[in-house]
Amino acid sequence: MSATPQPPCVILNEPQLAENIGAVARVMANFGLSDLRMVRPRDGWPQPRAWASASGADWPLDNARIFDRLEDAVGDLQRLYATTARPRETRLPILTPLEAAGELHAAAGQELTTGLLFGGERAGLETADIALCQAIVTIPIDPRLRSLNLAQAVALNAYEWRMAIANEPPPAFREEAEPAAQAELIGLYEHLEGELEASGFFFPPEKTPSMVRNLRVILARSRLSLQEVRTLRGVITALTKGRGRVLARLAKERAEGRGRPEDG
Amino acid sequence: MSATPQPPCVILNEPQLAENIGAVARVMANFGLSDLRMVRPRDGWPQPRAWASASGADWPLDNARIFDRLEDAVGDLQRLYATTARPRETRLPILTPLEAAGELHAAAGQELTTGLLFGGERAGLETADIALCQAIVTIPIDPRLRSLNLAQAVALNAYEWRMAIANEPPPAFREEAEPAAQAELIGLYEHLEGELEASGFFFPPEKTPSMVRNLRVILARSRLSLQEVRTLRGVITALTKGRGRVLARLAKERAEGRGRPEDG
Repeated sequence: MSATPQPPCVILNEPQLAENIGAVARVMANFGLSDLRMVRPRDGWPQPRAWASASGADWPLDNARIFDRLEDAVGDLQRLYATTARPRETRLPILTPLEAAGELHAAAGQELTTGLLFGGERAGLETADIALCQAIVTIPIDPRLRSLNLAQAVALNAYEWRMAIANEPPPAFREEAEPAAQAELIGLYEHLEGELEASGFFFPPEKTPSMVRNLRVILARSRLSLQEVRTLRGVITALTKGRGRVLARLAKERAEGRGRPEDG
Repeated sequence: MSATPQPPCVILNEPQLAENIGAVARVMANFGLSDLRMVRPRDGWPQPRAWASASGADWPLDNARIFDRLEDAVGDLQRLYATTARPRETRLPILTPLEAAGELHAAAGQELTTGLLFGGERAGLETADIALCQAIVTIPIDPRLRSLNLAQAVALNAYEWRMAIANEPPPAFREEAEPAAQAELIGLYEHLEGELEASGFFFPPEKTPSMVRNLRVILARSRLSLQEVRTLRGVITALTKGRGRVLARLAKERAEGRGRPEDG
């Protein structure tokens, strides 16, 4: 029943150097990963220098997909983990590469689609990018030299994936409900945020990004199933429809001169 | 009683590219290693390009030591593991980086000096180099792309070292006898091989390297203590002295016309 677990895809968000992209493809191939996706590579794509530095690992580069928006790059994934050396304030679980590989392996054994997200060489990941993910992977780095090469970060995670494959068979059947894919989660987020925006929830306006992020992280942590996403969207719709009805009734009452006492 | 365990040193045997040496220094620093040694770097030393690619990890490069012979580079080490993607015929234990880090960590906790040996980019390690080591570390690589970058190989081992430090305290006291350092082992090997050479043991001559290697591996596997090395050298001396006496007696007997029957 359970096929070979599908390795996680690797998403590079705004990578800069073609040499590093090639080195990423090489370590992906070293450890059996092949699905490479990039969001806004700085110098465009394709770039011959990436192939030159891949030492023959052409297939992740040949099949790489390029996206304008991170949301589109991860839309089909059901588990997305962010790798960052500097987890900033967030309430997502923080895992070692070992722990993350174990979880991704278990998820892949249940035929879920998984991905590892990496930031660009200089900027790393924004907290808004991290808030799209279900967990943070942090490599145990020495504080004396925190600057870890991008391909090294991919290598350590890919290595742990391969160790996880070698060490234990994946679970033979699904135990959970079908998890929502990122696109469905993002749909939920945007639905909720749109309604909150309309309601004046985001105040003061400059706090909107952090309020959005905090809400997304709360929902991301719960690892919603597809059915649960639908349920929550129904909840939002019901709440806003109800609000619509309340507002409509208030408007009607006012028009009829029967405002609420505190309005008068 | 037990201090912070001393990280393994990294020995690069005939490294080629200065950029890779710099990248090795960087990952060493990322994971708290600092003792870098090189045997016959192809383009000499120092090379500014190494510093340029180390991203600020200058200290392993500034303090790097250069050797003409591998034997001299590892002379002070009490545990030496060879990292190679292609373990050829040998009877040494084969470990994953995870297992190797656990063993090296335990050894370092007993205040032993440890090292990880890496071959050059193209040639890797010769079996004669591997035969100086107590174990082989093999990274679980996908057969579809076996070419692993040198700095990646160092990174995976250095990462596992750091994970080992994070996961468990080192043993608090020595359980074993003081292990021999490589220089003492090499002294034993050369003593034995010299006597065997003199005795005509290595025949046919073209088989000498593989016979030497097999003998060294047998001794390496037993992880001799300093005392055991001394004992074995005493054994060799005793045996050869005995042989010397036998030969001397034979010569005397011949001179006196009392040769062994089969000589007649």
